Amino acid sequence: MIMGDRGTGKSTTVRSLVDLLPEIRVVSADPFNSDPDDPELMSEEVRMKVQEGISIPVSTTKITMVDLPLGATEDRVCGTIDIEKALTEGVKAFEPGLLAKANRGILYVDEVNLLDDHLVDVLLDSAASGWNTVEREGISISHPARFILIGSGNPEEGELRPQLLDRFGMHAQVGTVRDAELRVKIVEERARFDQDPKSFRESYREEQEKLQNQISLARTLLPKVKVPHDIRVKVSQVCSDLNVDGLRGDIVSNRAAKALAALRGREEVTAEDVYTVIPNCLRHRLRKDPLESIDSGLLVVEKFCEVFGYARPASS
Amino acid sequence: MIMGDRGTGKSTTVRSLVDLLPEIRVVSADPFNSDPDDPELMSEEVRMKVQEGISIPVSTTKITMVDLPLGATEDRVCGTIDIEKALTEGVKAFEPGLLAKANRGILYVDEVNLLDDHLVDVLLDSAASGWNTVEREGISISHPARFILIGSGNPEEGELRPQLLDRFGMHAQVGTVRDAELRVKIVEERARFDQDPKSFRESYREEQEKLQNQISLARTLLPKVKVPHDIRVKVSQVCSDLNVDGLRGDIVSNRAAKALAALRGREEVTAEDVYTVIPNCLRHRLRKDPLESIDSGLLVVEKFCEVFGYARPASS
Amino acid sequence: MIMGDRGTGKSTTVRSLVDLLPEIRVVSADPFNSDPDDPELMSEEVRMKVQEGISIPVSTTKITMVDLPLGATEDRVCGTIDIEKALTEGVKAFEPGLLAKANRGILYVDEVNLLDDHLVDVLLDSAASGWNTVEREGISISHPARFILIGSGNPEEGELRPQLLDRFGMHAQVGTVRDAELRVKIVEERARFDQDPKSFRESYREEQEKLQNQISLARTLLPKVKVPHDIRVKVSQVCSDLNVDGLRGDIVSNRAAKALAALRGREEVTAEDVYTVIPNCLRHRLRKDPLESIDSGLLVVEKFCEVFGYARPASS
Amino acid sequence: MIMGDRGTGKSTTVRSLVDLLPEIRVVSADPFNSDPDDPELMSEEVRMKVQEGISIPVSTTKITMVDLPLGATEDRVCGTIDIEKALTEGVKAFEPGLLAKANRGILYVDEVNLLDDHLVDVLLDSAASGWNTVEREGISISHPARFILIGSGNPEEGELRPQLLDRFGMHAQVGTVRDAELRVKIVEERARFDQDPKSFRESYREEQEKLQNQISLARTLLPKVKVPHDIRVKVSQVCSDLNVDGLRGDIVSNRAAKALAALRGREEVTAEDVYTVIPNCLRHRLRKDPLESIDSGLLVVEKFCEVFGYARPASS
Amino acid sequence: MIMGDRGTGKSTTVRSLVDLLPEIRVVSADPFNSDPDDPELMSEEVRMKVQEGISIPVSTTKITMVDLPLGATEDRVCGTIDIEKALTEGVKAFEPGLLAKANRGILYVDEVNLLDDHLVDVLLDSAASGWNTVEREGISISHPARFILIGSGNPEEGELRPQLLDRFGMHAQVGTVRDAELRVKIVEERARFDQDPKSFRESYREEQEKLQNQISLARTLLPKVKVPHDIRVKVSQVCSDLNVDGLRGDIVSNRAAKALAALRGREEVTAEDVYTVIPNCLRHRLRKDPLESIDSGLLVVEKFCEVFGYARPASS
Amino acid sequence: MIMGDRGTGKSTTVRSLVDLLPEIRVVSADPFNSDPDDPELMSEEVRMKVQEGISIPVSTTKITMVDLPLGATEDRVCGTIDIEKALTEGVKAFEPGLLAKANRGILYVDEVNLLDDHLVDVLLDSAASGWNTVEREGISISHPARFILIGSGNPEEGELRPQLLDRFGMHAQVGTVRDAELRVKIVEERARFDQDPKSFRESYREEQEKLQNQISLARTLLPKVKVPHDIRVKVSQVCSDLNVDGLRGDIVSNRAAKALAALRGREEVTAEDVYTVIPNCLRHRLRKDPLESIDSGLLVVEKFCEVFGYARPASS
Repeated sequence: MIMGDRGTGKSTTVRSLVDLLPEIRVVSADPFNSDPDDPELMSEEVRMKVQEGISIPVSTTKITMVDLPLGATEDRVCGTIDIEKALTEGVKAFEPGLLAKANRGILYVDEVNLLDDHLVDVLLDSAASGWNTVEREGISISHPARFILIGSGNPEEGELRPQLLDRFGMHAQVGTVRDAELRVKIVEERARFDQDPKSFRESYREEQEKLQNQISLARTLLPKVKVPHDIRVKVSQVCSDLNVDGLRGDIVSNRAAKALAALRGREEVTAEDVYTVIPNCLRHRLRKDPLESIDSGLLVVEKFCEVFGYARPASS
Repeated sequence: MIMGDRGTGKSTTVRSLVDLLPEIRVVSADPFNSDPDDPELMSEEVRMKVQEGISIPVSTTKITMVDLPLGATEDRVCGTIDIEKALTEGVKAFEPGLLAKANRGILYVDEVNLLDDHLVDVLLDSAASGWNTVEREGISISHPARFILIGSGNPEEGELRPQLLDRFGMHAQVGTVRDAELRVKIVEERARFDQDPKSFRESYREEQEKLQNQISLARTLLPKVKVPHDIRVKVSQVCSDLNVDGLRGDIVSNRAAKALAALRGREEVTAEDVYTVIPNCLRHRLRKDPLESIDSGLLVVEKFCEVFGYARPASS
Repeated sequence: MIMGDRGTGKSTTVRSLVDLLPEIRVVSADPFNSDPDDPELMSEEVRMKVQEGISIPVSTTKITMVDLPLGATEDRVCGTIDIEKALTEGVKAFEPGLLAKANRGILYVDEVNLLDDHLVDVLLDSAASGWNTVEREGISISHPARFILIGSGNPEEGELRPQLLDRFGMHAQVGTVRDAELRVKIVEERARFDQDPKSFRESYREEQEKLQNQISLARTLLPKVKVPHDIRVKVSQVCSDLNVDGLRGDIVSNRAAKALAALRGREEVTAEDVYTVIPNCLRHRLRKDPLESIDSGLLVVEKFCEVFGYARPASS
Repeated sequence: MIMGDRGTGKSTTVRSLVDLLPEIRVVSADPFNSDPDDPELMSEEVRMKVQEGISIPVSTTKITMVDLPLGATEDRVCGTIDIEKALTEGVKAFEPGLLAKANRGILYVDEVNLLDDHLVDVLLDSAASGWNTVEREGISISHPARFILIGSGNPEEGELRPQLLDRFGMHAQVGTVRDAELRVKIVEERARFDQDPKSFRESYREEQEKLQNQISLARTLLPKVKVPHDIRVKVSQVCSDLNVDGLRGDIVSNRAAKALAALRGREEVTAEDVYTVIPNCLRHRLRKDPLESIDSGLLVVEKFCEVFGYARPASS
Repeated sequence: MIMGDRGTGKSTTVRSLVDLLPEIRVVSADPFNSDPDDPELMSEEVRMKVQEGISIPVSTTKITMVDLPLGATEDRVCGTIDIEKALTEGVKAFEPGLLAKANRGILYVDEVNLLDDHLVDVLLDSAASGWNTVEREGISISHPARFILIGSGNPEEGELRPQLLDRFGMHAQVGTVRDAELRVKIVEERARFDQDPKSFRESYREEQEKLQNQISLARTLLPKVKVPHDIRVKVSQVCSDLNVDGLRGDIVSNRAAKALAALRGREEVTAEDVYTVIPNCLRHRLRKDPLESIDSGLLVVEKFCEVFGYARPASS
Repeated sequence: MIMGDRGTGKSTTVRSLVDLLPEIRVVSADPFNSDPDDPELMSEEVRMKVQEGISIPVSTTKITMVDLPLGATEDRVCGTIDIEKALTEGVKAFEPGLLAKANRGILYVDEVNLLDDHLVDVLLDSAASGWNTVEREGISISHPARFILIGSGNPEEGELRPQLLDRFGMHAQVGTVRDAELRVKIVEERARFDQDPKSFRESYREEQEKLQNQISLARTLLPKVKVPHDIRVKVSQVCSDLNVDGLRGDIVSNRAAKALAALRGREEVTAEDVYTVIPNCLRHRLRKDPLESIDSGLLVVEKFCEVFGYARPASS
């Protein structure tokens, strides 16, 4: 989840992820982006064909990035079952929704804090389980819906209720650049893009590819990364001292630290890895003190320093 | 009913009950999970077949666990009658709902405090009577709906109204583990499960089976368990002194104590059994004093000690 | 009307009345429970058959007890007219509702204080007139709807508006038993019932039959019971002094006292009869003084004692 | 309009007017109660027949008393046009509503203060103009709707907005009898009626007929009754001094005084006539002073006494 | 727009305008009251006939006065397009609404302050442009809708929002007559009308005709009326000093003064003409000062006197 | 976006833009106003024809000006897909909405602050991307929707939420003319127009054409206009110092200054150009200080003067 001022490029950044992440192999023209090799990521139709030994056409493609519109209905998100058709044609009676389209890709919800609570709930359930199940009049259809859920919003327009906030893994905050030269730089980049999008993209191609490779390598390394026991305990100590409800904060902090270590090319998590990720992992899990205007992220950093024996950072 | 902080595994715990409770014999492919032997737990169709001496296929299966989605309609829960079909085909015009599916199993309602009051009422009526009756335009269809109703929720998101709360038998409260080592332990278990769910489950199989057996034995023992008269009087004294309205608190405390004694392998309830169960049986039946921030459960324990002549526990 | 704490057996008590009241003779399979002898209690169809001298099958049955569900629509309560059918088939186009079913029986509304005002109004009109009239597009169908209307509710969940309250004849209040031994007694009875409902019922059969006979005799005696003039004046004095609006309080107090005298086997009402019934007859007709926390029933008793020259009861 | 405590017989009194007012001659079986002689009070169908010289069956009948149910729709009140039928069958496409039924009779609205403002508006428009016009998709149908509109209600349940109140001609207030002997008298009368309605009615027949005759005579006398000029000026002085908006108060007071004089058998209005009627004519037209708890009727009487040179009545 | 106390004859006055304004020539039986000579005031059908040289029947008639009912829908007001019919029959698929009926006449909205804002907006748009356009599914139909829009209301029941108020040209206020003799006079006139409407109307015929002629003459004179430049400047000075937003106040004041001069038979506007009309032109365009209880009209008069060099009127 | 007092000619000004902007070449009778030369501005149908080499009829026309009515639905704005038709006829199943009509023209929304937030969002998305995409049941249709979005409103009737405000490029404010002579001038112009619209328009034709040419030239010049680096930095400094969130303010200020320079016939932006446009570019992006009543535009000007080293303007 990303919260921040308007006009800071939140949506643009999320949209650019598609170009950064490695391409995937999919069953051609399959509305679920089925993985031709992993049965857990196939639609029922494809899985049946594979089991029957029917050969299926495969292509390589960028991951999909699905933009969930604010007014979307649950039907639009989850898909619908045509009951009459179901009686005669079986599985084909399912009209896939946005969750099908988002399988193996990214589901992006701008202004998630304005979304209906019930729909947020549905999204988080799917994101957590990796499956979307639609039931109607006794007919139940499931399909894989393994996607990265990214929400963004402006905190001035309201927050999600804590119950839902807690279920987002990480919570980043972004602010506006204050330095005038840097602003001019960005404005110039934007003007350069507006004038000639093609050559603009070309100028960043090399850097982009380097980053893609780094991510690919990190994915290979990740299963081997370990978190030393004393770091685990200290992470849990931070969570406990901050009165974080439940254990989601502990679990996510460990996972994020492992991912960062992998990206940095290491097989063991260090305190520095934790230091980098823990504010985003815990910030939204602190109970709000209405009298306290301090940013929750700073509280997390302070507690981290105390538990890990670091000097406190100078307050910014 | 289980109330507690988010992320404390409430839902996970309830979902695991299915594996813990003994399997049951059901009529195969029957949407009501009819018991092949007990007419009180048969659907009308099965009962008629049995009466006509038609042999019915039987299978053994885990109990069902039905998850009631927050937005469910009464039709979805109770089932619907297709009036036109009813005139031509009789009983078959009934489209069973979630209550049919939950027969002889568990009906789980997460965030029950956000559910529409009217639906809670319907659920409690069915849970109490063991039957679900649907009426429409003069046609009335009933089927057994004997299930364990479990609700959970986060108290920060609102309470049920007292009228409904009172009709839940027991009310447990759960909190977050504060000890860092224990938290690490749980996080590690979770990571172990995430990496290899199969072997994780295998490692707990023996313990699980032992527990299953203990429950089976307790079920056999239960009808023989007695509550000594002086314990009964003291239980009612506690209820009366706590100004608990009505007698549901007395009845449930007796029942729960008997169940616990059976689980512990005894045929007589002791004060210790009562001590263990009574906070969960009465906590939600106390009138809320808005100026009092003390947990209702502690008030119950204090009164128990006073009436049963125990030393008061040190306040935690 | 019965108001009281939750869990005090209000609904159970009302439901048991069916077994207590004498059986009635009805036209078999008639949806209106038509009386085979009294034209005022026949459906139009039966009345026409009787007038034509057609013999009708008769059976003896317990009175019906209709449970009005909270979400019932006016159509469900009053019945509906099928206009198209009406043009071709006449009276048969009427689909009877709950008021038809309740004819000559009891209509029970739990949580009447949560019922829509408009529906309460419809119920009270039918209960007062003994007829239910449904009109639609110029077609008007009436049928007898002579029933005992009983409402119950928990005062904590809100009151009816005074206009409606006033139209309920009597208003009882029930509270929770405080004596522990008595509570144990009730809990034991309940346990005895749960274990073996059949023999439990058997053990109370004799007592039940005695009560049935007493009620039958009282019904025969009732027309002969008189209220002495000075008692009438004193009753009206009590009503007037208590600022009871209108005369419904006076009328109901007289009627209830006569019924009690008949039940006690007397032909003349005594002050003691009045003393017993008057709190229930007037309690809900007093204007609420928001600063006064005293129970309205006590105010009625105090005024009774003052007017009838009794010593005031010691305050409980 | 009649406002007053519950249980004071408001509805009963209004309903009894039907027996008191002279019978009328109507075209038999006409849904509009057409007057066979006055074209202004005929339905279009009847008028056309009369013009064509077709003889029409006539009968004499009590005036109708229509009870407007609280939940009535505008369609039910005004009648509906069946557009398809209108194209083929003309006038017959009109399904008359309650206003047709009430023609030449009484339209009674209990709890008028709870009625939808829009419907009150429709009723007052019809009552004022004597016609009901229904328009739909270019088809417009009118019929006479000359009725006496009587509303009643309990002031504790809210008032009409002043705009509507002002359009009711007169506004009576009723209270509960306080004298115990008188209450007993009424209760006895009621009991006498309950026991034998027929002979109860018989015992009042003579008195009833006398009153009917008096009303008939007054109707004949009314056109000749005059209001002396100085009384007119004083009436307007009272209205002006009381800050009554508009002239409806002046007009109604004059009319009511004339009607009373006619009932008393005189051809000239006296100050006493005005004194009797003016509180009911002006009470609801005074601006409410929220700090003033005095009854508006008393203010009218006081001003009357001041302007007409009467001694003020002793305050009751 | 006319605002004032209830019962002051607002509606009656507006309704009487129909008799006062000169008759118009219309195409017979045309639902749009098409002018047979002016193409801008013809319906499309008529215009096409005229262009084709088809002769059309003409009649002379009073202008129409359309009474907009409070609950009118936009469809009822603007007319509707029957899409299916449109595909086969073209223009005839348009079902004209009240705006068609009001063409070249008066549209009267009683209680305009209670009308839905959106509908007021539609009315003002039509009144300003003289055309009504209905669009549906790509089909767009327009017809002339040149009418005088008159709204009335009681200020106690709420005001229009300033945005809408400003678009009404003039805003009159009426109060109740306080003089008793004058009231009697009016009451007598009313009684005279009630007794014999025909002769009442006859008695005013001559006066009525004189007024009709005066209006006819004024209409002929109007195009020649001029406003001297210094008066124009002073009018705008008044508007500017009173902080009237926009220039509608200036424009309307000039127009109204010209109309008055024409009615008074002059070709040049004088300061007296402005003095007479300017309070009604500006009163509703002043910003409300919530602490100021003075009537806005008086503020306009005071400013007028200051700018035009008049002595201030004595405050009434 | 234009905010200002009522009656200041906001709508009239916007409507006049159509006559001022150069005419465009369009495919005749195309509902999307397709550009015959630019594939990015063609509807799919036209693009396919062009690709197939089919010649298409072209005409020159004024740009369209679409007036978005306040009550417009999303269907009306975006167009609708007829699903059944889609299966048989493909693209033709799309019923274009107002966004299609507005392609290459102006979309004007009066009272935009009263428009539903969701619809404003849709409009801004289309305006930003230049495309309108409608999806329904798996069918997705896109068409170019490149229009100038102009909103207007009265600030007294509420503001848009900041999130939406920020996405409007520029924000002008207009007030009422206070000078009486100038007001008279405008009133006279209006009167001159009302009397003879044709000759009024003629009298301004030359001036109008001059302006059209100036705009045409500026459009040609625009691509060559540069903003010197130090001006860019100062612009960003102003934005940063004013705490403007995001970079939209910087980008728009640069663009507007370039457009103004082009209109003034220069190829380099000067500080004066920035001075003229920057208040309208930033005014609505400042955080509102509820205690500060100063106009946001003045704050922008003050900051501009400080950063660009100008003397502060005398406060008006």
